Amino acid sequence: MTGGPGTIWGVGLGPGDPDLMSVRADRLVRSGTHIAYFRKKGRPGRARKIVEELLRPDATEIAMEYPVTTEIAFDDPAYSACLSDFYADVSAQLRDLALAGHDIVVLCEGDPFFYGSFMHLYTRLKDAVPVNVVPAITGMSAAWTATGIPITWGDDVLTILLGTMPSEELERRMRDADAIVVMKVGRNLPKVRAAMQAAGKLDRAWLVECASMAEERAIPLAEAGDVTPPYFSIVIAHGQGRRP
Amino acid sequence: MTGGPGTIWGVGLGPGDPDLMSVRADRLVRSGTHIAYFRKKGRPGRARKIVEELLRPDATEIAMEYPVTTEIAFDDPAYSACLSDFYADVSAQLRDLALAGHDIVVLCEGDPFFYGSFMHLYTRLKDAVPVNVVPAITGMSAAWTATGIPITWGDDVLTILLGTMPSEELERRMRDADAIVVMKVGRNLPKVRAAMQAAGKLDRAWLVECASMAEERAIPLAEAGDVTPPYFSIVIAHGQGRRP
Repeated sequence: MTGGPGTIWGVGLGPGDPDLMSVRADRLVRSGTHIAYFRKKGRPGRARKIVEELLRPDATEIAMEYPVTTEIAFDDPAYSACLSDFYADVSAQLRDLALAGHDIVVLCEGDPFFYGSFMHLYTRLKDAVPVNVVPAITGMSAAWTATGIPITWGDDVLTILLGTMPSEELERRMRDADAIVVMKVGRNLPKVRAAMQAAGKLDRAWLVECASMAEERAIPLAEAGDVTPPYFSIVIAHGQGRRP
Repeated sequence: MTGGPGTIWGVGLGPGDPDLMSVRADRLVRSGTHIAYFRKKGRPGRARKIVEELLRPDATEIAMEYPVTTEIAFDDPAYSACLSDFYADVSAQLRDLALAGHDIVVLCEGDPFFYGSFMHLYTRLKDAVPVNVVPAITGMSAAWTATGIPITWGDDVLTILLGTMPSEELERRMRDADAIVVMKVGRNLPKVRAAMQAAGKLDRAWLVECASMAEERAIPLAEAGDVTPPYFSIVIAHGQGRRP
């Protein structure tokens, strides 16, 4: 801490199994003196749980608690404004810590630059203090590995969709893709399944819950009931391309 | 080696920096007694090079040398037949080693189930001997991290294309995507760049060479010259989605 700002590390933790963290992420987390992570109010935090066994006992923890999650609709301008204020506040907090000379490890589920929350801190911090990003294994990689079937062969086109998209849009894009990944399935499961059926691909689609974790479950999508799966569940349809 | 077959491990090594291997991959590679990898004839092998400093000195190495790479056209039936014989031969070799009780680590660049060669062994081996797959950080994750710009925001659709595809097909799909990754660029660079321009996205596209390695280079695609970049170069256009 002699002069100069500390570095903010956006550290991807991967899909959930600590054994699938990168060697670099493992080292940064184990040695980190300041550990920041997002969580819902009153929850332990999913990212924090992944590193439970790895943190230094004397690490300072910075819990960044979302002000809203699903209470306000995504397309309500109030949702965006509320989140924007939140990201500005926590970014300022991390910036001040870094300017005081502390290195900070921000725990990120999955890969930080792939549909992650860290990106909202990154854009606010990168011109103020040093920020480094450690890529990670995505949840979708763990999901297709869990199915025991390769996702893409030869020249297969892979399209990554969100369960939050309108159903016509889902169906159109599912028709046009060789291999498909749908993220953020959760309560959108019935819509995603109907779109997959309409696109003629239900018979080769899978639902994967909690990929790489103890609760991992991969089942044919057609056999999934109407129970809402965890938010981070992923639907997959594998490509059928060239295979010598 | 008391009874029972050994396990064949398809171990994803990630994008190239050994520090980005998973903790599990690192452990398996360091402890492996039998290490198999693909390579071109007369070359050291890219996967083998990544683990250069990690292998046990007494490890038995099994180099699986491709009989053809670019000498025969992809769409020539002779290409497929030749590769098919090759995969059958090396699968039989690995199967026999596993049946003799040896665990075998097969080194895989990137993620094994994502456009990888290991898939061709996997389908031939999985019903004969125990096969486990370790997912990994993809080359594309390292590539978008190298650009310093997040790849997907909000509900951005990400489409993954191959430089080997016809140009009309590339252009059509580039138009229809929010975020774009093009794999296998190499000698297809002029075609990929022209398609990106026709799709109106050249101004926000990047070319990334050797992501995560010492030679890493990320430049605006419009500024890339006509020199053929390495085969594993990746072209990226970032999504522009919702960002509170």
